[in-house]
Amino acid sequence: MDFADAHACLQKVEPLVQCLTNKVVTNFTANALLAAGASPAMLDTPEESEEFAQIAHGVLINIGTPSTEQYGGMRAAIAGAQGHTPWVLDPVAMGGPKLRSDFAREVVQQHPAAIRGNASEIIALNGGAGGRGTESTANVNDALAAAQELAKKTGAVVGVSGPKDLIVDANQHVLIEGGHPLLQKVTGTGCALGALCAAYLGAYDDPFVAVATAHAHASAAGSVAVRSASAPGSFAVAWLDALYELDGAAIANEVTIK
Amino acid sequence: MDFADAHACLQKVEPLVQCLTNKVVTNFTANALLAAGASPAMLDTPEESEEFAQIAHGVLINIGTPSTEQYGGMRAAIAGAQGHTPWVLDPVAMGGPKLRSDFAREVVQQHPAAIRGNASEIIALNGGAGGRGTESTANVNDALAAAQELAKKTGAVVGVSGPKDLIVDANQHVLIEGGHPLLQKVTGTGCALGALCAAYLGAYDDPFVAVATAHAHASAAGSVAVRSASAPGSFAVAWLDALYELDGAAIANEVTIK
Amino acid sequence: MDFADAHACLQKVEPLVQCLTNKVVTNFTANALLAAGASPAMLDTPEESEEFAQIAHGVLINIGTPSTEQYGGMRAAIAGAQGHTPWVLDPVAMGGPKLRSDFAREVVQQHPAAIRGNASEIIALNGGAGGRGTESTANVNDALAAAQELAKKTGAVVGVSGPKDLIVDANQHVLIEGGHPLLQKVTGTGCALGALCAAYLGAYDDPFVAVATAHAHASAAGSVAVRSASAPGSFAVAWLDALYELDGAAIANEVTIK
Repeated sequence: MDFADAHACLQKVEPLVQCLTNKVVTNFTANALLAAGASPAMLDTPEESEEFAQIAHGVLINIGTPSTEQYGGMRAAIAGAQGHTPWVLDPVAMGGPKLRSDFAREVVQQHPAAIRGNASEIIALNGGAGGRGTESTANVNDALAAAQELAKKTGAVVGVSGPKDLIVDANQHVLIEGGHPLLQKVTGTGCALGALCAAYLGAYDDPFVAVATAHAHASAAGSVAVRSASAPGSFAVAWLDALYELDGAAIANEVTIK
Repeated sequence: MDFADAHACLQKVEPLVQCLTNKVVTNFTANALLAAGASPAMLDTPEESEEFAQIAHGVLINIGTPSTEQYGGMRAAIAGAQGHTPWVLDPVAMGGPKLRSDFAREVVQQHPAAIRGNASEIIALNGGAGGRGTESTANVNDALAAAQELAKKTGAVVGVSGPKDLIVDANQHVLIEGGHPLLQKVTGTGCALGALCAAYLGAYDDPFVAVATAHAHASAAGSVAVRSASAPGSFAVAWLDALYELDGAAIANEVTIK
Repeated sequence: MDFADAHACLQKVEPLVQCLTNKVVTNFTANALLAAGASPAMLDTPEESEEFAQIAHGVLINIGTPSTEQYGGMRAAIAGAQGHTPWVLDPVAMGGPKLRSDFAREVVQQHPAAIRGNASEIIALNGGAGGRGTESTANVNDALAAAQELAKKTGAVVGVSGPKDLIVDANQHVLIEGGHPLLQKVTGTGCALGALCAAYLGAYDDPFVAVATAHAHASAAGSVAVRSASAPGSFAVAWLDALYELDGAAIANEVTIK
């Protein structure tokens, strides 16, 4: 898979990525986008989001801590994105609290270019039972059938994050091995990955390769980070550094594709 | 005091801690919980908070930057927590702005398992005069009588943070010495400590020991962090690393109990 | 220009700086203020902001991610600041989305002590065409005439950030050279600079020197940070460290004034 080409396109386009995301990870997500070569815009109000989604290269909808006002912004951004701007759904804690689960089931009908979550979230979004909070209680293999169904129903590329990442569309799938368990000890690495998916989708024409490259980039940065950091505070810093320093060839070297 | 036993329980239970906290520290608090061995859920809407507080192991209510919507979430979470989930009140800037002071006086009646603040906040919550912003203008010794009264009135364990930390319940108190002044130069170390109190309370049966261990863990991490970091940016990173690396025996070695 | 005197005053006064700022940078801004020697209060509700702005030493209004509730807080804080507390306007993405552009044009009439933005934002606030998102599509030299007009119309000191920073009031201007391009790869360095302007204005009598010193302090910290960090994660940490470690003489040594 041509990670190097997708990475080169990202560096060239510097995609403007509008993130409507949870309040825990706004800063970390913006920094991950900057480090990877994209340009973040964390704009999420009802009044401004439709207009902005029309000029952005990609949009992220992450439902980790939605407010009434932010739900309005999300609906506006998705409307603005229809037909020209690829948007990514990150259904955080899907299958847990009812309100967000209903919202995710509603907007998944509106043509996301990609859906990214852990195994429990993807299974729940496809109609199965959900997990607890933001942690997955299922594993990636459990989610393959659900991800394939979801890809067929929605037309989206589906990314399932875990110790291995699974990337699925209606016709194919791939497993990406890499990263490190410390990624789970830093809040927002998964949410930042959702934003990276939107960035690659905004810069590269093949959605399957774009989403796979986003996952490979994040995983590879984890593999690199752990060489200089063995605890979560310094690991988070090293992960951002590695997102910045890795080029396309290095990304390919750091992960295994199956 | 058996810090090692409480710390071992936290590692085993991996308590799910729901944080309704201020917008400045959501990321840092979640990272501190993850580093210490707990699982954060920063969920604070009126619609989802009652339901979630029923399944969480502990709940944090921190009034640093409340909005109308978040006040609704806080009332819902406290209602959901009643009778089974221990919740912690962190009355940030209590005695300053009127709205939050009224709110803290209201909810302190609803059986918090612990109250954590600086000396000025604890004195003000007990009915005395308050400080300026988030800084304490009183010292920990000044707050002993107020903390004891507050513990008797509410049934809560009261933690008063400062150069030394004072832990008080209706029958006993203890002083914990440790940490470093650079903790005051990193925003959110006190707020993260409130979340750690909720984590320990959710994992350990003795509330007094749970709250004391949370304070000892945070202080010990400060003592360790300053050995590799002499300025606030790197100190914050090292503090998260130390929260992760310290075991129960090391926590006990790093602090002095009086 | 006497950076050392302004810096010494900041250390002595420890100004309380109320920040009504965007959700991406609350934590980083508070940490930058603490590192530089000020005391942050990130309080922005309609109910509490007027009262608090009266006791703060300085107020920051940053419109990066405004909500309806925060606009109310901003109007209240500006009202509370009138006549005694210097306030700073950071018109993020001015000239982009209409709602925030209208708001910035409204409040700029209400006597800000300083306005800080990139070249595109300053040109747009003065009535010219705007940029895209938070990035400047114009350069600092392009903004000189607009900044001078804006300074004359409003009475504010105007700071234009870029590879070189331009500081302008109705009668004079100065260029400050320093910093490093990695500052653009860390979200919130510009927003933190707005808060530092409010801190210096709250601690030092001469507004032109106060705003220039804030810019010099931030630039000098960038020049220092890059000596130990070559990627954005570690650079952000090193920048906070340098804000803390630099004294007034060192700030003067690290920048060039023209």
